[in-house]
Amino acid sequence: MTTFRTEHDFLGEKQIPDDCYYGVQTIRAKENFNITGIPIGSEPLFIKAFGYVKKAAALANRDLGVLDPKKAEAIVYGCDRLINGEFTDQFISDLIQGGAGTSTNMNANEVIANLGLEYLGHKKGEYQFLHPNNDVNLSQSTNDAYPTAFRLATYLKIEAFADALAQLQEAFYKKGKEFDNVLKMGRTQLQDAVPMTLGQEFNAFATTLAEDVVRLRESEKLITEVNMGATAIGTGVNAPEGYSNVCVKHLGEISGIPVTLATDLFEATYDPGAFVELSGILKRSAIKLSKICNDLRLLSSGPRCGFNEINLPAMQPGSSIMPGKVNPVIPEVVNQTCYYVIGADLTVTMAAEAGQLQLNVMEPVISFALFTSLEYMSRACNTLKDKCVVGITANVEHAKNLVMQSIGIVTQLNPILGYETSAAVAKEALKTGKSIYEIVVDEQKLITKEKWDEIYSFENLIHPKFITA
Amino acid sequence: MTTFRTEHDFLGEKQIPDDCYYGVQTIRAKENFNITGIPIGSEPLFIKAFGYVKKAAALANRDLGVLDPKKAEAIVYGCDRLINGEFTDQFISDLIQGGAGTSTNMNANEVIANLGLEYLGHKKGEYQFLHPNNDVNLSQSTNDAYPTAFRLATYLKIEAFADALAQLQEAFYKKGKEFDNVLKMGRTQLQDAVPMTLGQEFNAFATTLAEDVVRLRESEKLITEVNMGATAIGTGVNAPEGYSNVCVKHLGEISGIPVTLATDLFEATYDPGAFVELSGILKRSAIKLSKICNDLRLLSSGPRCGFNEINLPAMQPGSSIMPGKVNPVIPEVVNQTCYYVIGADLTVTMAAEAGQLQLNVMEPVISFALFTSLEYMSRACNTLKDKCVVGITANVEHAKNLVMQSIGIVTQLNPILGYETSAAVAKEALKTGKSIYEIVVDEQKLITKEKWDEIYSFENLIHPKFITA
Amino acid sequence: MTTFRTEHDFLGEKQIPDDCYYGVQTIRAKENFNITGIPIGSEPLFIKAFGYVKKAAALANRDLGVLDPKKAEAIVYGCDRLINGEFTDQFISDLIQGGAGTSTNMNANEVIANLGLEYLGHKKGEYQFLHPNNDVNLSQSTNDAYPTAFRLATYLKIEAFADALAQLQEAFYKKGKEFDNVLKMGRTQLQDAVPMTLGQEFNAFATTLAEDVVRLRESEKLITEVNMGATAIGTGVNAPEGYSNVCVKHLGEISGIPVTLATDLFEATYDPGAFVELSGILKRSAIKLSKICNDLRLLSSGPRCGFNEINLPAMQPGSSIMPGKVNPVIPEVVNQTCYYVIGADLTVTMAAEAGQLQLNVMEPVISFALFTSLEYMSRACNTLKDKCVVGITANVEHAKNLVMQSIGIVTQLNPILGYETSAAVAKEALKTGKSIYEIVVDEQKLITKEKWDEIYSFENLIHPKFITA
Amino acid sequence: MTTFRTEHDFLGEKQIPDDCYYGVQTIRAKENFNITGIPIGSEPLFIKAFGYVKKAAALANRDLGVLDPKKAEAIVYGCDRLINGEFTDQFISDLIQGGAGTSTNMNANEVIANLGLEYLGHKKGEYQFLHPNNDVNLSQSTNDAYPTAFRLATYLKIEAFADALAQLQEAFYKKGKEFDNVLKMGRTQLQDAVPMTLGQEFNAFATTLAEDVVRLRESEKLITEVNMGATAIGTGVNAPEGYSNVCVKHLGEISGIPVTLATDLFEATYDPGAFVELSGILKRSAIKLSKICNDLRLLSSGPRCGFNEINLPAMQPGSSIMPGKVNPVIPEVVNQTCYYVIGADLTVTMAAEAGQLQLNVMEPVISFALFTSLEYMSRACNTLKDKCVVGITANVEHAKNLVMQSIGIVTQLNPILGYETSAAVAKEALKTGKSIYEIVVDEQKLITKEKWDEIYSFENLIHPKFITA
Repeated sequence: MTTFRTEHDFLGEKQIPDDCYYGVQTIRAKENFNITGIPIGSEPLFIKAFGYVKKAAALANRDLGVLDPKKAEAIVYGCDRLINGEFTDQFISDLIQGGAGTSTNMNANEVIANLGLEYLGHKKGEYQFLHPNNDVNLSQSTNDAYPTAFRLATYLKIEAFADALAQLQEAFYKKGKEFDNVLKMGRTQLQDAVPMTLGQEFNAFATTLAEDVVRLRESEKLITEVNMGATAIGTGVNAPEGYSNVCVKHLGEISGIPVTLATDLFEATYDPGAFVELSGILKRSAIKLSKICNDLRLLSSGPRCGFNEINLPAMQPGSSIMPGKVNPVIPEVVNQTCYYVIGADLTVTMAAEAGQLQLNVMEPVISFALFTSLEYMSRACNTLKDKCVVGITANVEHAKNLVMQSIGIVTQLNPILGYETSAAVAKEALKTGKSIYEIVVDEQKLITKEKWDEIYSFENLIHPKFITA
Repeated sequence: MTTFRTEHDFLGEKQIPDDCYYGVQTIRAKENFNITGIPIGSEPLFIKAFGYVKKAAALANRDLGVLDPKKAEAIVYGCDRLINGEFTDQFISDLIQGGAGTSTNMNANEVIANLGLEYLGHKKGEYQFLHPNNDVNLSQSTNDAYPTAFRLATYLKIEAFADALAQLQEAFYKKGKEFDNVLKMGRTQLQDAVPMTLGQEFNAFATTLAEDVVRLRESEKLITEVNMGATAIGTGVNAPEGYSNVCVKHLGEISGIPVTLATDLFEATYDPGAFVELSGILKRSAIKLSKICNDLRLLSSGPRCGFNEINLPAMQPGSSIMPGKVNPVIPEVVNQTCYYVIGADLTVTMAAEAGQLQLNVMEPVISFALFTSLEYMSRACNTLKDKCVVGITANVEHAKNLVMQSIGIVTQLNPILGYETSAAVAKEALKTGKSIYEIVVDEQKLITKEKWDEIYSFENLIHPKFITA
Repeated sequence: MTTFRTEHDFLGEKQIPDDCYYGVQTIRAKENFNITGIPIGSEPLFIKAFGYVKKAAALANRDLGVLDPKKAEAIVYGCDRLINGEFTDQFISDLIQGGAGTSTNMNANEVIANLGLEYLGHKKGEYQFLHPNNDVNLSQSTNDAYPTAFRLATYLKIEAFADALAQLQEAFYKKGKEFDNVLKMGRTQLQDAVPMTLGQEFNAFATTLAEDVVRLRESEKLITEVNMGATAIGTGVNAPEGYSNVCVKHLGEISGIPVTLATDLFEATYDPGAFVELSGILKRSAIKLSKICNDLRLLSSGPRCGFNEINLPAMQPGSSIMPGKVNPVIPEVVNQTCYYVIGADLTVTMAAEAGQLQLNVMEPVISFALFTSLEYMSRACNTLKDKCVVGITANVEHAKNLVMQSIGIVTQLNPILGYETSAAVAKEALKTGKSIYEIVVDEQKLITKEKWDEIYSFENLIHPKFITA
Repeated sequence: MTTFRTEHDFLGEKQIPDDCYYGVQTIRAKENFNITGIPIGSEPLFIKAFGYVKKAAALANRDLGVLDPKKAEAIVYGCDRLINGEFTDQFISDLIQGGAGTSTNMNANEVIANLGLEYLGHKKGEYQFLHPNNDVNLSQSTNDAYPTAFRLATYLKIEAFADALAQLQEAFYKKGKEFDNVLKMGRTQLQDAVPMTLGQEFNAFATTLAEDVVRLRESEKLITEVNMGATAIGTGVNAPEGYSNVCVKHLGEISGIPVTLATDLFEATYDPGAFVELSGILKRSAIKLSKICNDLRLLSSGPRCGFNEINLPAMQPGSSIMPGKVNPVIPEVVNQTCYYVIGADLTVTMAAEAGQLQLNVMEPVISFALFTSLEYMSRACNTLKDKCVVGITANVEHAKNLVMQSIGIVTQLNPILGYETSAAVAKEALKTGKSIYEIVVDEQKLITKEKWDEIYSFENLIHPKFITA
């Protein structure tokens, strides 16, 4: 049978199940916010980040003499349990919540306080010995503790995504090497342009993703700027002198994350600019990934009535009615993930713009958007790499045949024939269905077969030299 | 100890735990798609909708003589279990998935087939007696079964949201009545304008939401247009003659939903226009709700340094550091929900635009966006109503005092003094800090006290008459 | 040499060139707002709409005895000149402006007053005889006159766009008829699916656009709901009794637009919901048009290395370097227009959400977004029709050959061979490069040549019958 | 009377007015694209950038011996005229155009060719002496010349915007200094929080904008990465060996812009990532500016029924009906500009994602979106600075009185009374309407008057010390 303890805040009393580490304010939050049904505990790195923040604060408070060392030790004990990945089930408030994260911060304060109370030999709820606000939250405010924890968790998730993206990039790079000698038609505006290699195409996929790995790492600089010691709105009210620096130093050491202290604490307390920037970079990555997936789907279109230059690994039957149909399901799911991320960027945009005066109260939905985007993107990259890219094969002969039958290769004759004559040749080819070779060598004898062979050697198609008559 | 059965498709074999009703294709989907971690079974109405669709198809197939009545009976049995809300845990594929919903459709086909097999006295997996594709999916394709189920589920969720919105509207309407006699300053551009009542303000909230209840009901017309019988891409290939109409008739009867058959099955098969429209309406509702919440937060700003015209119910302590602070946490969480919905509309936009040729392959992410938006919005409306609107109180005296001290009430003197003299009075008031009364009656004697009292009676402030000199 | 007259408002004096019909407040607006450089006069329908609004107000004021009939006559004279399309060069304030449209409203008031003054034999600026605020703006406020004019202009522009869209739809419909017998491969997920006709494909384009013509017409219902008589914030302050109804009656008669009076003037004064709805519909149209253009570009991809089922008219050389290259430039410019419109919808969204309390101060940017979107979309539809759709031709033989060489046609054998055998045939075809015919008739003799011919007749491919063994 | 010359391309002949420097392809573009009505010549920096690009190419071609020095001289002459800001009226194709910018590139080629022809003593249109494609476009393709010119123009516009933003920042910074001693209430969630100075608030505005000046400068790094020498799709076909480096060297010297050559020309040719990044930064700036304007409007709300802490300069009468009303029209127009920019970012997003294979064909609409956004933002910053920020004044006494009457100042007592007692005091104040001073000093005697004075000295309110009992 569940037994309860009674807790109160200035709004009144609540009964808390005895085995729960959270307290009265967490219960209120749980009752108040029921939107997504997804608890903050579903983001273990967020809870871990609160462990870091509260531990750093406790040590700074102890160092500066405003917190009893015994209490500090108890708080540190509780934080270490969170850092260790435990008790995420005690973090029950909804990821989307009002109050600018106060509920999340108080959930952490309460859980840590009760863990600390047990460590000290007291019972949960005996806050006279270790208080969620007066002790665990000492020299802090939701205004600094929440965004700092949010930033640390975000940093850890960026790292994971950057790794996934880098691995995907590497997979494309390897395929680029493998397809080094696969001649194929390049296309602009979906129209046949000039020849290139499939290797060049896949290598470009790697290049474009590599840039975003760099962008992501760069974004960490702003993300790791924290405002500990701002307390309410950046004033530093109720924090002892020197607290900011001591706290941030502890925070960097405990977490191993290169945190720095913001120079303007008022601005830092309300500005979600770093999140906006990150969201923009995620959107950029999503755009690039989506473009790549669009290309993979185009290049593998067919098998008989499309481009059919490459084959994606068959992952599942593609139709409940069309036998043998295999679809590019992995790029498709990645495209959709990208659309989610682009939508989430708009959520971040709206929320960031809505911040008023000394605090951005919409940060919880920003955290929701960024946490899910980072998570989904990481998974999408891993999925694309493992279940698609590494297994892609080329239809070498078909791709080459398309090139040699194309009209686009007339471009190579420009320096010899001039643009206008070349255009006339192209027009003739289009009208008659003949190949360029037939027209320029056999019929119109505009160049010799030897010249043709020089110009249209594999080497020259891939790395064109400037050849004149 | 888990025992397994072996199933195969044209890509090979898979081991399936014996107690699972899903089969080989579901397992593949589970392996292939791991993005959100949220299974389709988390949307019970979607599963119920598949029950409706598959049952209607089976009955139509039976009626038209292409399905053995005994098999039809078994399929109906399986569908009824789903309609009854059972077996949602068997729907394990990720809500965001490639394959245009094939995995979801096959998940339904497999679960129903195995339920049917048990009903017929066979074992799960003995598909020679009842086959997921040949029997359960008979005369269907993912191209019609999936969007139809998606539409039915969406209809049910629209109904729920429209109800929640209507109740919220009613709550505002009642508050409007309650605040009928509360005089307050109206504001445009955040500047004092002319007086109104708080009742008029709350009544306008009700009016604006009432319109969206109508819009939502209107959207159901397009949402309930289905394409059963389209099979692959709208051709109707492999469906018996007359199937569409018979199937849709059954579907309407079984579900109680006013479904109609689309007139152009090719268009209906690929066009997500109904979802785009619905998403636009949801966005409109989100904009309105967000605007209302912005207003509630403004009107309750303070308590000492803000507008302070109304009080929102105190739901939780508002700060971990500032004692006694109470925040408008409920409007805040609703704002954030609205930003989510607006972001989700962009996801729908991107996904809808990306549809190519005969099918929109991005429908799964559209379903994800719409299902979550509808759900979150319903909860947000209920939350706002229960935890905020019904408990709002007015600061009657303060609101009235603001009006009478304001400069904006000079507007009422326009017809008597003309715009330019009135403007001069206003300017004087602003400069000196005096009240309009002091200037026009006491000092400049532009009107008499009697005239003043006529013009500035409560009745005339609320329902202004055209009063001239 | 320019001579000047002096005008003043409560902020001071300004010199106005004597030949200008606008006055002091317009000059201020011109100085204050310099963002787009695009004057409101660039939207002639907006100026015309102000003519309608101010004329209706003057007549109502005259009817109700609050405006001297001679003054009314002068105002009507000025309005008629605007309605006639004259003096748009006198409307110089920037389309994007602060002040919720006050500058635009005052620009109209001033121009009409000065036209009226000349009509009455006075000089411009002699406002003692006809005053922009006291007479032209009588019984009005920017809060009602501006949105009403905005709505009327929008209505006229919706009409133009709906016409353009309907004509484009008709062009697609005609092409659908023309391509009735062109057999081609249908594709889902860019993979070969089952055969259809090009006529069905183009007809579906017509169908999907036809729906949006209906949506646009529906949107006019909300757009034509006006709030004349609301004056400041919906109170009706300073308007004579009965004014709203008389004014709206005049407005309908003068303009020929089916205007109605909003029932809740407070809500109507601040709610941009009708604009949000319209913007959502425009976005829906943009999504559909963009999808169609994507398809046109895909279907015409090649000429040698793509789908090449259709030819778009060659409009211009496609490359500065690749001779003979012709690109799908018309669909491309339409795609880009659609992206503009989708972006503009977000502008509308942000602006609508930002409305506070009794007025949406962001309406000017909403008008900018909607006016440009409607204009660009109309032009895009006309461009697409005239310069692309009417000239599209089909590559009949090539399209048919693709079908018969495809694997997708195996679907037709499902009812005879069952899904699994059909899948095995498909797999064999893919592996060996053979045609389905070779495998099922020649090699495996699964069906006879006669059966094949029955199933794969043109008629049955287009309108499939349910054929069993 | 206009006389004409005849020009042709491979689609046929066109008559060109003799005084026009553009030619046949420009005429076609003008006929084909009529969407915005805004010609590319309306962006003088874009034309200048084409001057840079074509000049650099001509010099490189000359250096490498593939272009006759006399022809090079003629081309350089034409380019210098463009660089000098002349002939923008000859650039008539619509900013939104199909063809991936080919029309713009050909417009430049034609104008330069005809200027060069005149320089050489020939007549316009005598392309046998200097050819738009063969000579002016030598070693180039639209694929490299267009995006390079786009990037250079963008760079120049970023510079202008960064300057405007930096000046706005400086204006806020100065106001921050001026308001150094203005005590006011800080607010979170629109609820009174703790005291701060108006100087701190304005300084934070400066800080947040300063960061974006840095971001903008950073974005120039990616923007100035060009792909000259890529020619078609990045192959470098038809460009002489070493051309890329020589050309880029010239380009840097001619333009004074720090251009670099992209390392992967295939990727560089299709990837709009730099534009996406820039657009994201512009969106971030827009969010910040919009937030600042929201705050300015809130802080100046009133004058009697709002916060009324600051006064914005009165720029124009604020109402056509409400005398003396003055509105925050400048922040309002800036807000709206920001919504435009945020919408334009979505346009960029859609266009960037739509790029397929070897080229992003949607770049023209990206240029439209970025050029207008940069321009409007620059103007908005200048407007905000000149017409608002520099003239802002503070209501010093009122702001201070609000602080001392507030409940929020109880926070300062936390370290002495503890969170719970303080909360009880706050509750009592809220209930009774009393000040904190009355309760804690006079009534409950929780602290002495001396202690109060120490804690609530101006200095301690601004720079709080940690004060205990």
